[in-house]
Amino acid sequence: MENSWGTSRTEAFSDGVFAIAITLLILEVNVPETAFDNLWRGIADQWPSYLAYATSFITIGGIWLAHHGIFRRLQYANRRLMVINLALLMAVSFLPFPTKLMAEAIHNNDAERAAVIFYGGTLLVISLLLSALWGSVTLDRHLLRPEVDEKEIKAIALAATPNIGFYVAVIVLAIVAPVVAASGFLLIALVAVLRARGDRSLEPPTTTA
Amino acid sequence: MENSWGTSRTEAFSDGVFAIAITLLILEVNVPETAFDNLWRGIADQWPSYLAYATSFITIGGIWLAHHGIFRRLQYANRRLMVINLALLMAVSFLPFPTKLMAEAIHNNDAERAAVIFYGGTLLVISLLLSALWGSVTLDRHLLRPEVDEKEIKAIALAATPNIGFYVAVIVLAIVAPVVAASGFLLIALVAVLRARGDRSLEPPTTTA
Amino acid sequence: MENSWGTSRTEAFSDGVFAIAITLLILEVNVPETAFDNLWRGIADQWPSYLAYATSFITIGGIWLAHHGIFRRLQYANRRLMVINLALLMAVSFLPFPTKLMAEAIHNNDAERAAVIFYGGTLLVISLLLSALWGSVTLDRHLLRPEVDEKEIKAIALAATPNIGFYVAVIVLAIVAPVVAASGFLLIALVAVLRARGDRSLEPPTTTA
Amino acid sequence: MENSWGTSRTEAFSDGVFAIAITLLILEVNVPETAFDNLWRGIADQWPSYLAYATSFITIGGIWLAHHGIFRRLQYANRRLMVINLALLMAVSFLPFPTKLMAEAIHNNDAERAAVIFYGGTLLVISLLLSALWGSVTLDRHLLRPEVDEKEIKAIALAATPNIGFYVAVIVLAIVAPVVAASGFLLIALVAVLRARGDRSLEPPTTTA
Repeated sequence: MENSWGTSRTEAFSDGVFAIAITLLILEVNVPETAFDNLWRGIADQWPSYLAYATSFITIGGIWLAHHGIFRRLQYANRRLMVINLALLMAVSFLPFPTKLMAEAIHNNDAERAAVIFYGGTLLVISLLLSALWGSVTLDRHLLRPEVDEKEIKAIALAATPNIGFYVAVIVLAIVAPVVAASGFLLIALVAVLRARGDRSLEPPTTTA
Repeated sequence: MENSWGTSRTEAFSDGVFAIAITLLILEVNVPETAFDNLWRGIADQWPSYLAYATSFITIGGIWLAHHGIFRRLQYANRRLMVINLALLMAVSFLPFPTKLMAEAIHNNDAERAAVIFYGGTLLVISLLLSALWGSVTLDRHLLRPEVDEKEIKAIALAATPNIGFYVAVIVLAIVAPVVAASGFLLIALVAVLRARGDRSLEPPTTTA
Repeated sequence: MENSWGTSRTEAFSDGVFAIAITLLILEVNVPETAFDNLWRGIADQWPSYLAYATSFITIGGIWLAHHGIFRRLQYANRRLMVINLALLMAVSFLPFPTKLMAEAIHNNDAERAAVIFYGGTLLVISLLLSALWGSVTLDRHLLRPEVDEKEIKAIALAATPNIGFYVAVIVLAIVAPVVAASGFLLIALVAVLRARGDRSLEPPTTTA
Repeated sequence: MENSWGTSRTEAFSDGVFAIAITLLILEVNVPETAFDNLWRGIADQWPSYLAYATSFITIGGIWLAHHGIFRRLQYANRRLMVINLALLMAVSFLPFPTKLMAEAIHNNDAERAAVIFYGGTLLVISLLLSALWGSVTLDRHLLRPEVDEKEIKAIALAATPNIGFYVAVIVLAIVAPVVAASGFLLIALVAVLRARGDRSLEPPTTTA
């Protein structure tokens, strides 16, 4: 007899964490009051904050889409899945910290390399945990809903994997060109959202297809 | 075969983001400790914060009502809808930043014009994204529940559109009268809430009508 | 034809706001680093923060219980109810601000009276809006589920009303004895939670009754 | 006739509080700008913050798993359960405060003992309230779903109890070795997550067992 959990409350809890982590990001964006005599410039000078904000927001958005796609294919969860899911949520909740650090450090030659690499490292860990989440499901096929076939299992694994390579490449790039690398993370996030796999693969009604 | 998503988890995630963004707004409202020797005056002096708080709260409340009305009419979502929805959530999550800026800048002649225009610009973007959300649904009618008819589709589009014009007008007004314009945004938000369309159009039981 | 809203997403959104407002309260509790050479005393010196934290937490907890009890008796919501509900959420979201103010001002003779009265005034407004929420339902009985009878309608109205009088009395008390009044708000909150009415009135199985 | 509450909205509200408390923890993690000339060292110097963050995150994660396991076995809740649940949520929401204190105080010889004991005391209270939650259910067996048998009731009680002893032991240890004790809390949290009991005890399909 095995421990198992229904997925609906886990989805609700995970959604809560994703929604909060994504919304807290803006708390760190700030124009110092000294910039108020020329506020348009003050607003413009915060571009590293907007870049960091947009990157983390879209990254978490993409993780949420992928998480949604994974959990909708499950009948229930076992302990290993619950533990990996908690680890994933912990890494996502951690992201506002390196986001803030990167936003502050881009103004600073000494710190920007370290900050961008640390940020990229966090994204890499998130990406590895997301892969591990699906990998763990594929080891326990009885967790899956009966209608999920082999082709779909492989497609989801393929959707999760390439980001790991991209993150490693952009982290290496950050050693020589931190700001370019920061934009690279935004690009990876955008592509992940645009490539996200639905939670169902419905045939649209033939009248509209 | 098309990717699609069930709407219930998207609603839950969106509700989370709306609820958090709306509740974080108060964190920026503050009476400095130097005002504690005359606290009633200190509380009163924060009126720009209350104006900004109320405007953003009611605006997000109206967006939530409209979002609710849109998603309840969907059978499922496609990728374009998910992407526009994420962009809308990103703009709504961003709103606490211009809200804080406007609250601080109204005390300051140099900065208040820029702050109010920047705030209004964010509201305009939110409004455009909400229109785009419904516009995208109307391009893919198979996303709609079968009971949604042509008349209702037009009514919802009409409910979303006028705000765009109002926002442009009030932003122009902000160039000459920033504080008046700030109150204009509050008025637009109030009207949006009062004009919000239900998620169903039920005939009330005839005994009570 | 009347606009109407399903209640489930409104409950979810309201729960989100209540949960966030209740959890944000702790962010304002702080021991200054200057108190670190005698940390036990530093922790003890923060008692006004704990009093304010507990009062606001338990107050919002009681509001949530009452809100839960009201919405579970509804079939659907009309526009007036949605507007009053938004106003209630706005007042609850505002509460962390007077909470913080009261916690800071209790150390300060000049400010504590104003801070406690301002805090009590916010609680009074919340209490009035909660009464208005139920009052609005009783004006539109077709919103109620058919099994809700006259006796229950009156019982819920009676549960909501007395707090209004208590709040007025304690606010008057705050003029002469602010700290005692602050404890009075805690007492009202505790009683409200202990007197909360369930969302159903089930007969327990006779074997256990 | 007894007051009762459906469990689904209580689960949703509790999940919201757990998710927010867990996600707010990161807001207190910070690298001071003075450490930006050697950011890698500045990041490393924050290890007490990471330890505190991980411990509180995993502790709340374990509480959430246990809470999930308890509520899924209920048919409905009575008033005593609602009150204990609110008290548990209040203690969990309080945790970010001692977490922040412990993270700051570990750099400080005077304060670290008090901070770790205060942190451990909060964990002990949370643990006692969780035990009380299940204990209260076992006193009112009619709250349980009919399929929950005596064996399961005892197993859940046994899962909740030992932590209380562990917390007392580690708090005593904190008197002589605060930093070791801080790691002890992390260990207890990890074990609690790994030992968490599922919300169902399903026989996995025999084909995969």
